[in-house]
Amino acid sequence: MGKLVIVGTVAFDAIETPFGKTDKILGGAGTFIGLAASNFNVDAAVVSVVGGDFPQDYLDLMSNKNIDVSGIEIVKEGKTFFWSGKYHNDMNSRDTLATELNVLADFEPKVPENYTDAEVVMLGNLHPLTQMSVLNQMTTKPKMVILDTMNFWMDCALEDLHNTMKYIDVITINDEEARQLTGEYSLVVAARKIHTMGPKYVVIKKGEHGALLFHDDKVFFAPALPLEEVFDPTGAGDTFAGGFAGYLAKTGDYSFENLKTAVIYGSTLASFCVEKFGTERMLTLTSEEVYKRLDQFKSLTQFDIELN
Amino acid sequence: MGKLVIVGTVAFDAIETPFGKTDKILGGAGTFIGLAASNFNVDAAVVSVVGGDFPQDYLDLMSNKNIDVSGIEIVKEGKTFFWSGKYHNDMNSRDTLATELNVLADFEPKVPENYTDAEVVMLGNLHPLTQMSVLNQMTTKPKMVILDTMNFWMDCALEDLHNTMKYIDVITINDEEARQLTGEYSLVVAARKIHTMGPKYVVIKKGEHGALLFHDDKVFFAPALPLEEVFDPTGAGDTFAGGFAGYLAKTGDYSFENLKTAVIYGSTLASFCVEKFGTERMLTLTSEEVYKRLDQFKSLTQFDIELN
Repeated sequence: MGKLVIVGTVAFDAIETPFGKTDKILGGAGTFIGLAASNFNVDAAVVSVVGGDFPQDYLDLMSNKNIDVSGIEIVKEGKTFFWSGKYHNDMNSRDTLATELNVLADFEPKVPENYTDAEVVMLGNLHPLTQMSVLNQMTTKPKMVILDTMNFWMDCALEDLHNTMKYIDVITINDEEARQLTGEYSLVVAARKIHTMGPKYVVIKKGEHGALLFHDDKVFFAPALPLEEVFDPTGAGDTFAGGFAGYLAKTGDYSFENLKTAVIYGSTLASFCVEKFGTERMLTLTSEEVYKRLDQFKSLTQFDIELN
Repeated sequence: MGKLVIVGTVAFDAIETPFGKTDKILGGAGTFIGLAASNFNVDAAVVSVVGGDFPQDYLDLMSNKNIDVSGIEIVKEGKTFFWSGKYHNDMNSRDTLATELNVLADFEPKVPENYTDAEVVMLGNLHPLTQMSVLNQMTTKPKMVILDTMNFWMDCALEDLHNTMKYIDVITINDEEARQLTGEYSLVVAARKIHTMGPKYVVIKKGEHGALLFHDDKVFFAPALPLEEVFDPTGAGDTFAGGFAGYLAKTGDYSFENLKTAVIYGSTLASFCVEKFGTERMLTLTSEEVYKRLDQFKSLTQFDIELN
């Protein structure tokens, strides 16, 4: 059972989808990653920052899931990061209505001392220098560093991103971002180029079209579970990453074969996340439900062909 | 070893992709379906029509693949159906530059007498009444009728399409067409609605994102093989259908489990089709190459999770 350090936003979200809208609810990459990882009973800490307006209830809710919140700094006189977005009818695109950085603007992550020897580090989507500063605080070299990022950092901090990428093992990125980062349309060619930038594993997330895991010349594909209805996609990518990282921290096996399983766990957890607004579904999730859905994933993709 | 009747266009195509352009080359749904099915050494006949301008060489090429061409009518004084299209850079969309129906305008399919008892009937994309007339010529009820169609017929012959759909077992359709046919965005909900229109199996093709097979509450997913480069997507959907139908005709097993395998064979053959212009790649394909790629499909999707 390894330790897992997660850095990422802990935030307020206000979400509008064709199914309804929310007031300010609990959100943020660090929150979704932490909640997903908590399904594996790993020793996980979230490193983040919130304002004085952040309810103790939300922190308790994470603590109750055995997530260490001692690395979540509370800036009493500040306000918590706030994001608001509205999804289009197809749920594949969204407009950002508001982004208020607030305390995130001056965020300097501090990894709790008893987590600086963590085996797995999950760098949620943040400025690449912020991600790097977490790595610099580790006193022993992590077995696996996973980085999530987005097009925004490619636009405004590409050099920093390239530098941080040299120190990571896995990058998770969506298809359009992989194309932007490499200038290649083919995801196979894009993944090969990204390998040369540092990460030996490349996970390309395709939303409702699943996820690809690349390693050298090997490739593995996990579909997204076909769902009757996607209620709210917010946090699905982070939940995927949290399931991926959590499973690796639990098993301590960093082989390609085990990373395949980690991708399936990530996809499985993400398929729950989108069923309700925000973190709602993740808070009630039971291991029985997870196992049942893993079984559905098996039926969805497993086949038997005799090659003569 | 069952008999397979295929109805579909045998045509000239002129194709332009970012990689180059062709003069008039061999094309047509019936051609691609027939060539794909020929990989299973089934007793297959293509029912179609061509003009006096259609080279005997092309017919010989099909005969040499053991495809019965006695159902391909030659209208000496007519011209062969011609389609021309240009693919955009992403290869996912294309502009039709020319469609000359020619002899196809008055096409009345005639199923060769020794094929009216075929176990499997593959109705390639044509007017639903033309597809129905093939079914009406069958003297024994086929074990499996597969229908491919497109948005064009939903726009201009929806009632006929609905009627023909009552007599089929499998429909193959792409994601946008499934949405148009049902008015449902969720493919799970769309497939359920399509079931009620007749076909007990629904195959939804998602191009580079793979294909879904629905049956009652069961669903199976086959990814498309991630390729370095898609050279020409023309005929990929028909090749998929031909591999699917050919495998079923060969095995005579119409269970859901075997249809899953048929979908994998269809995807495998389609992955070759796009590697060269038109039918070029399909003409040189060896069974060794097919088996090797089936193995790649296995590696791509198979995983092992112990559910405790």
